[in-house]
Amino acid sequence: MATPPGVSERDFTRALTEFRNAIGADWVFTSDEDINLYRDAYSPFKGEAEDRVPSAAVAPNSTEQVQAIVRIANAHRIPLWTISTGRNLGYGGSAPAYSGSVIVDLKRMNRVIEVNDKTHFAVVEPGVSYFDLYRYIQERGLKVWIDPADPGWGSPVGNALERGGGRTPMRDHWNAVCGLEVVLANGEVLRTGMGAMANSEVWHQYKYGFGPLVDGLFSQSNFGIVTRMGLWLMPSPEAYRDGRVNVAQHDDLVPFMETYAYLMNSDILRGTMLLESPLLNYHVTQGGSFFEMPNGPSTAELDRLARERNLPYWSAEFRFWGPPKIIDAQWEYVKEKFGVIAGSTFADGRRYVLPAEFDQNDPTLEVALGIPSLGVFGLLQGGGHLGFSPIIPMTGDAIFRAQRAFGRLYAELALPAANQFAALPWSYNPRALVLLFGLPMSRDKEQNRQSREVFERLVEVSAQNGWAEYRTHIAFMDKVAEMYTFNDHAMRRFHELLKDAVDPNGILSPGKSGIWPRRLRSNRG
Amino acid sequence: MATPPGVSERDFTRALTEFRNAIGADWVFTSDEDINLYRDAYSPFKGEAEDRVPSAAVAPNSTEQVQAIVRIANAHRIPLWTISTGRNLGYGGSAPAYSGSVIVDLKRMNRVIEVNDKTHFAVVEPGVSYFDLYRYIQERGLKVWIDPADPGWGSPVGNALERGGGRTPMRDHWNAVCGLEVVLANGEVLRTGMGAMANSEVWHQYKYGFGPLVDGLFSQSNFGIVTRMGLWLMPSPEAYRDGRVNVAQHDDLVPFMETYAYLMNSDILRGTMLLESPLLNYHVTQGGSFFEMPNGPSTAELDRLARERNLPYWSAEFRFWGPPKIIDAQWEYVKEKFGVIAGSTFADGRRYVLPAEFDQNDPTLEVALGIPSLGVFGLLQGGGHLGFSPIIPMTGDAIFRAQRAFGRLYAELALPAANQFAALPWSYNPRALVLLFGLPMSRDKEQNRQSREVFERLVEVSAQNGWAEYRTHIAFMDKVAEMYTFNDHAMRRFHELLKDAVDPNGILSPGKSGIWPRRLRSNRG
Repeated sequence: MATPPGVSERDFTRALTEFRNAIGADWVFTSDEDINLYRDAYSPFKGEAEDRVPSAAVAPNSTEQVQAIVRIANAHRIPLWTISTGRNLGYGGSAPAYSGSVIVDLKRMNRVIEVNDKTHFAVVEPGVSYFDLYRYIQERGLKVWIDPADPGWGSPVGNALERGGGRTPMRDHWNAVCGLEVVLANGEVLRTGMGAMANSEVWHQYKYGFGPLVDGLFSQSNFGIVTRMGLWLMPSPEAYRDGRVNVAQHDDLVPFMETYAYLMNSDILRGTMLLESPLLNYHVTQGGSFFEMPNGPSTAELDRLARERNLPYWSAEFRFWGPPKIIDAQWEYVKEKFGVIAGSTFADGRRYVLPAEFDQNDPTLEVALGIPSLGVFGLLQGGGHLGFSPIIPMTGDAIFRAQRAFGRLYAELALPAANQFAALPWSYNPRALVLLFGLPMSRDKEQNRQSREVFERLVEVSAQNGWAEYRTHIAFMDKVAEMYTFNDHAMRRFHELLKDAVDPNGILSPGKSGIWPRRLRSNRG
Repeated sequence: MATPPGVSERDFTRALTEFRNAIGADWVFTSDEDINLYRDAYSPFKGEAEDRVPSAAVAPNSTEQVQAIVRIANAHRIPLWTISTGRNLGYGGSAPAYSGSVIVDLKRMNRVIEVNDKTHFAVVEPGVSYFDLYRYIQERGLKVWIDPADPGWGSPVGNALERGGGRTPMRDHWNAVCGLEVVLANGEVLRTGMGAMANSEVWHQYKYGFGPLVDGLFSQSNFGIVTRMGLWLMPSPEAYRDGRVNVAQHDDLVPFMETYAYLMNSDILRGTMLLESPLLNYHVTQGGSFFEMPNGPSTAELDRLARERNLPYWSAEFRFWGPPKIIDAQWEYVKEKFGVIAGSTFADGRRYVLPAEFDQNDPTLEVALGIPSLGVFGLLQGGGHLGFSPIIPMTGDAIFRAQRAFGRLYAELALPAANQFAALPWSYNPRALVLLFGLPMSRDKEQNRQSREVFERLVEVSAQNGWAEYRTHIAFMDKVAEMYTFNDHAMRRFHELLKDAVDPNGILSPGKSGIWPRRLRSNRG
């Protein structure tokens, strides 16, 4: 039997017996067959000693059962690793950062507690998936939209806690959180915000409560186990429309992004933009790169190519949700604002009065219409990916600098051209951009070794430029935390000061976000 | 010389000498004349032993000087109480919760570090006022708006930390915070979010950083001293317009509020609404009350009065900021949605293309147009007020229940009719409402004693109904924290666990938000 490091077989056996007594023997998993399901299917250490493996898994069905598990783990110093639906793809799936941890799998806590379509919120447990929540709403004919992640089998709780994003105006998932129930490391239950009042009427309608706000402490965190979450929803909009804006030349991106930031921060554009480049799409087919390569064509040459091929250099689809007359006015105004950039062109897109006019056969729109989907898997080239996602400023200049910085690195490492998802940013968050790299993971150790090296270089090059990751794979949490250097890693030291106070035995998710409890701190990679 | 409780005169004298050495003798205040300036001018304990009095005040000029003060305070166990501009009116002004604290007055830290009108944020120190920030922006012709509190002499940092509100779409001030610099109780500097990376490019553009979010810990808090803050701003809108919606009868408030929540949560209505009642305004002139009194007229009688006098029961002015064609479409749609309520009426209001058409002589609009003002003092009946501000759900039903609950209390205590500010809610926050009571404070001890009793009863009656205060006066912090009862005050116990970890000597703002450090916990009221 594999035991957690430093835990004797006798103590572990006792703990497992106590887990079985607390939640039922059927829900304590110890066989290799069961445990292997919790490994990262596309681990960057696939088949190597460093691959993270749990020692067991437990699947509680209630907050009380989570409390019992935490108390038992405390008594025996058993490290736990909590997952919601375990679909943290590209970032480790359901595997723990610290090998030997016992997985606390919350999939059975899959109750939708409440959906309110008058003040527009949901209250869900961690095991609820986007599909579950969507189905619940549809079955009752409630007039609210959810904002699914790509793909829809993930957990709204898990995704919000990891600060993931979607496509609609509610795309910043952590920002939609209102009120948590948390099991602390001592087994006690805390309710945050207005939930700190036993009979509160506004637990899921007012975020702040009284005194210091602690909700954020449980995001990307090992300070507690979230067992319930309030999430703000969007009222079902009356209509949807989209339209495309193209600008002709490389340098047009600067006014393009300035206009975009103005529109976004004025609430005229909402939802997530993916910047595209028809010119670079073509250039890549000719052996070029999405990045600006040291030995590649100059900007002037690419501008000439754009003119010759009649391809816009930059392009984006903008989406609008709301009453027809308002979204029509918004799109008209968006065209007017971008129209001052010489050579800009526009294409009206789809326009649906909802729900009647939506073409159910348009899977590309599902997520943007609040419908969970697995369609994203059709876009990937098969196999797993390692997510690398640095945050950069919402300016054309920052995008240019990123294209140059990563271009130099790709040239130095002789890497293939990558794809537009790596080179061009998304706007999952209100006032910054994120680049989403997906480095291919395979079952070949040598390929994975190279990918890990690339990953580490990407992290370092980003950090040199002042760009850090918002989230990372379990195998690189220490590496990414290391980049947060201000005042001798003051943030990490503060995190670990808090960690030791709230979890003195260090049982909750050791290593999560680079935070190690005192007794395991020497494990820092 | 008054010394902090438990601090000997010798130790205090030493500490004062060290303060003088650290920040200059001119900025350490110990005379009664100076110290009295930091008392609450309209304290509910005016002239009584319980009135909060500082022992001294220090005014540092930089983060480094704040660090020095904190280190000295640690060495001598001197309790500190931090203020920004000290204008926390209705909630204690610049006075400490714990008598004998040394005021850390940050008024000299009044630098505007940066205002960016391309990605729309400001970086300010705590001593900057709304007037200062507005002037900075105007002098440079920058295309951003601030969202001032009423009144404008307050501090954007202080107001955001206290989770105050304004009038424009950026009204939820804590929600606009992006990136803090904090001096911790041990004298170290922490930068939050992306500021945890020394050379970050997005400290004030991306809120979250990596790992658990700690920003909220420094709001309504005694866990650190905020010395710098990033604040998101709104791009200057092209135009402003407003319009009034009236509905005829008492029960119309239910669909009115449901429509309001739909419009607000769809980003069609933005900014703060103050619900009004022309009918109750008239009723009050006839000796009636804004609340629903046990022995007062029935709803049917008031409905009849509304018809007879041709007065709408409920009314609200809605405000729109943006391009003319979009705000015109929004106002048309708002009328359409409220128009389905039988008997609703509408009045077009002001409409200005900005800045050209704004009538500079309309002071009632200043705050809604991002212009700081002291005009609010013209609306108060002179004298000070004690703020009581419970949060209630964003529904007509909740407003009715509040009117009944507080009506019963006002009848029981034979209180005067109060004013609409107490009885009718504001929407400072996205998905809940707040009632803003201002209990008059005087220099008469007996009157103040009665006001304190009323205040405590208001707190209790609110709590019985599941409504708690979002903020309170320094004299009632323990009382309000006491209402947060879930799981034997789990939140307060968690707060104090964190407090003891981050401030083991208990020097920072003891008693703030009902949080006492271990060594002073017996002071809980």
